[in-house]
Formats: sequence, structure tokens, C-alpha cells
Amino acid sequence: MGAIKASRAFTSRPKIAKVEGAYHGLYDYAEVSQTAKPDAWGAVDKPNSVPVAHGTPTKALDDVVIIPFNDIPRARAILDQHKGQIACVLLDLMPHRVGLRPAEADFVEFLREWTTKDESLLVLDEVITFRSTYSGAQGWYNIQPDLTALGKMIGGGFPVGAIAGRADVMDVMNPLAKKVLFPHSGTFSANPITMTAGLVSMLDFDEEAVDQVNALAARAIEGINEAIAETGIKACVTGGGSMFRVHLKEHPPINYREAYTTAQENARLVVLLDNIFDEDSLMINTCAAVMATTMHDTDIDALVAALKTGFAEIE
Amino acid sequence: MGAIKASRAFTSRPKIAKVEGAYHGLYDYAEVSQTAKPDAWGAVDKPNSVPVAHGTPTKALDDVVIIPFNDIPRARAILDQHKGQIACVLLDLMPHRVGLRPAEADFVEFLREWTTKDESLLVLDEVITFRSTYSGAQGWYNIQPDLTALGKMIGGGFPVGAIAGRADVMDVMNPLAKKVLFPHSGTFSANPITMTAGLVSMLDFDEEAVDQVNALAARAIEGINEAIAETGIKACVTGGGSMFRVHLKEHPPINYREAYTTAQENARLVVLLDNIFDEDSLMINTCAAVMATTMHDTDIDALVAALKTGFAEIE
Repeated sequence: MGAIKASRAFTSRPKIAKVEGAYHGLYDYAEVSQTAKPDAWGAVDKPNSVPVAHGTPTKALDDVVIIPFNDIPRARAILDQHKGQIACVLLDLMPHRVGLRPAEADFVEFLREWTTKDESLLVLDEVITFRSTYSGAQGWYNIQPDLTALGKMIGGGFPVGAIAGRADVMDVMNPLAKKVLFPHSGTFSANPITMTAGLVSMLDFDEEAVDQVNALAARAIEGINEAIAETGIKACVTGGGSMFRVHLKEHPPINYREAYTTAQENARLVVLLDNIFDEDSLMINTCAAVMATTMHDTDIDALVAALKTGFAEIE
Repeated sequence: MGAIKASRAFTSRPKIAKVEGAYHGLYDYAEVSQTAKPDAWGAVDKPNSVPVAHGTPTKALDDVVIIPFNDIPRARAILDQHKGQIACVLLDLMPHRVGLRPAEADFVEFLREWTTKDESLLVLDEVITFRSTYSGAQGWYNIQPDLTALGKMIGGGFPVGAIAGRADVMDVMNPLAKKVLFPHSGTFSANPITMTAGLVSMLDFDEEAVDQVNALAARAIEGINEAIAETGIKACVTGGGSMFRVHLKEHPPINYREAYTTAQENARLVVLLDNIFDEDSLMINTCAAVMATTMHDTDIDALVAALKTGFAEIE
């Protein structure tokens, strides 16, 4: 919400663009089309702006432009229809709900070029992905965003959110400016415990810690691929950095519509997840996982073994 | 934001109504007209929806209806123009920026009756005022809101927010419902430390603690009134419960436009606040204060003495 409001304040424009299926929190504009279903999502060339919360003002939906992930021609055609009206393109570089697969480099570069030319902003939501490399998931790409939204791990376990970016854009929140374009304050700004826990957490967040959790995910992905091959199940695993997601689909999904799980897939996922639970692990309903520095190879091996017996049971 | 989204989900309506000048956080809809200035606030019969953040979508402003505080005829005339379209009337019972004066009972009762008849919701923002009595500022009135937004003190110093209210309205967020009308979750939902600190804080929040802080505010208000009389300054003090605010105005303001401080008043306020600071107290730029259980009569007497020398200096 803060990054979107800062983008609007900087550009004097009302609209945002975002990737279909991507999660960016509860703010009306940010959550549009996060949970779009096939009966409502519309044509692939022109995805509908589908609300998440019932009662979302239709006027808010009008200000959100939905683009497909990893599809330059369609994204360009859609964005071009809103030239000069878009405050920012909001992007998660490895969106969980879109398949938890890193964005293709040329798609990211295209969005960087399009926004630069349009004088709109490129806002990266790294709330989840910041853990991916020492410089966030943006470390995978040869681009520089205008703003980056951060949260989760940077608070060391405490509620936190932060916006970072270009000095001239950040200046819209400068409380010492003559006219503050986007006044930003609140009870929980600069909470001392969050700031202390976050500082310690960020001091501990070094290349070595990142390598450690990323190695755990790599071990998991390797083991899961072996389990898929050995059980012959139609499944695949996507991910990057210290995160991965198992899909009960033959091929890794490239966008939200491909990642969308059918009723049949969901029924099979329930069997898989129940089996994992019976074997003393616990995964969320998307069968995705995030590695922690407190985990060890033995935890990963146990999870992979539980997934394998689940795969066998489904088959 | 949560209470507004819940209201929209329950009523299937897009608009909200709120009091001119009232602060309800950074959400676009909630912050409309919080900082409206005379050159933009429009006619008293039809206050404009004035954005706080530059770049706020005009379509969002269209969904916010602004009513004056404590003015039943005008509020009724404005609300009647939006019958059947308003999800909720959002109300702070003692809004700081509107003058920090408890809403008049008949105004609150009118809003309760109007919303009931219109089948819209009455949402009380008690984030700040919950401290006023053991049952919040709503304890002052003979009404029941549909939803109450809570925050600040209920987290025991940690970032927190909560929504409470009618079971059928709260059910829009029920994760076990067949169709969740307003899916509400996030990383920081049910944060264990916040929940623990909040529980302890709420156990400590009893009638005795409320009486203690309210007595401090009553002592301050009495002392300030004496100081005003003795120095002959054109000033007054408003407040209720454990909060008060000093205005450099002869009569207590009844709404936002009356509470609005002129450039001349602001210049005098700076002298007053600087004087208080020199005497080792610190107040915010509105010259408002909130009592804490850690304060004692001596703290209050020192603050009153500092205010008095400030008054004398201005005079």
C-alpha cells in the first residue's frame, strides 16, 4: 500500500499494473485478480480485474491493470493501452501463487524498459523473495527497480514493513519537505523492538546464511525430482533460492492460469498433504515450502521421504 | 481498512461516510478530508472529499461521503443523498483532529438510527479512544456499534490491530465459511508476542487503571482551566477520559472547521510548545496529551505549570 501510494504521489497517476494471480497483501488495488477463477478471469489477451473481497468498489477495479506473467507480447499490448496513466507496475519476481517460479529475465527487463519509457515506476515486492540472495531476488536480474517493498524477515519475527528505493521517489514521504506529497506515519512506525530485532536479523543475514538455506532448498528439489522419477507420478517442482513448490502437474507452470489447480489436482494434493502430516511434517495447501536457518539436511530428507510415500500413494 | 472492507463485504455496497477531519489511518478511503484546508474543503452543507496523499485516485474519492461532526441536520441531508449505497459510517467518538471533544450524544444516536434504517453499518474507530472507559468511549453512549476497530494499547506496546463486532458481520472473515466474503490473513496475524503482550495488557486494563489515568487528565484539565483564567489568555481545553487538548481559541471547537488552527494560532502554539519543552515536558504540535499509568500527579502539575508560563509569555 505504501509503495503504491508513493508511486501515485510521485507520478500523479491513478492506475497500477500487476501480474495476474500475484499476492501483494490486503490493499484493494494490490489484491485484484489474486484469486481469479476460470469462470471470471476473462480472455488471456485482456485479463479481467477480479476482486478478492466481496464488495470491493468497482471504481477501484478500474484503476488496476492485469498482465499475464512471463508473456511480453500480451503484457506490452495491455500496458500500451494505459500509457501515461500507470503509476507503477507492481512485480513479485517469484510469485508463490503464480507457480513459485522465477520470472524470466527478458520479462523483467521488458517491464523495466516499458516503465522507464512510460515514466511510470517499477515496484518490486520482495516481502517474500528478499531472502533469495544477499541482495534479494533482484540480485538474479540485471535491473534496478524504482522502489522495493520489504517485510517479513527484515523484522526478525516482529510485524514490519519497509519501502526502499530512489531518493527522489522516497522524497514524497519526507516529513521535512515543504509539501509532503504522501504523509506517512502511524503508531507503529519505527517500533523500537521491531527495529532492534530487525537490525540483529539483518546483521545475521549474510552470504553464508543465504547459502545455507539455499542449499537446503536445492537438496529438497533434487530429492523431490528423484522421488517423482522413481514413483512415475505426473508432478514437478519449481522454486529458487530457499523456496520451492510441488505441483501435481507434468510441466512447471509458466503463469497463473497454468499454475491454477483443478479440482482433481486439489483432491490429489489433499492426499499428499495428509500423508506428509502423518509423517510428522506440515506443508501449506499449495505444497510450497520456505527453508529456515534452523533446519538441517535431516529435516529435508524426512520431508522428501514423506513426499515420496505420498506420491506413491496417489499413483 | 479491515473494518471498511468487512462492511463492504457484508452490505455489498461501495461507499463509506466519515466525519470531516477525522483520522482513521493511511487507507485512501479512510483518510479522505483528514487534512482538508479552507481553500479546498467546500461548502459546509456539502464538504468536498479532499485527498490526503497526492495522486489518490479520484475514483476512490467518489466513494467517500464527508459529513460534519455534531451537526445532525447537515449530516442527515448529506447521508440521505447516498441512501442504499453506504457500507458504513466510520466514526471516532472523540476525534483528536476534530477538536478532541466527545461527540454529542444525540449526534451518535442519530448516526445509529440512520445506519440501522439504511441497513448500513456503524463502525466505531476506538483505536485511540478505547482507553476512555473500561468499555471504551462507546461506554459514554447508549448505543451499540456493528463493528469496533481496535489497536494501540490492546497490543501492550507491539504493533496490533483488531476488529470486533456483530457475529453475522464478523462472519464475512470466517475462514471456515463455504465462501469467505472477505479473506483476511497475513504474516502478522496472531503474532504470538503481540498476542501475549496484548493479553497481559488487557488483564491490567481494569476499572481501577482507567480511573487512575482519567483522574490525571481531570487534574490536568482543572489546572489548565485555572491557568487560562489566571493569565487571561484566549484559550480552552477539551477532552474526555484520559486525554485532553489545549486550543488557543476562546471557545471549545464543535467540529473540524472550528478546530482548524489559523496561521496566527499556529505561531502562538509554537511559542507555547517551545516553552513547555524548555520546562522539560514535550507535547505534540496539536498541544494534545494522553495520560499513562506510569504518570503521577507531580508530572501533571509540572506540565500545567509549564503551560501556564507559556500562556503568560504569549499574552
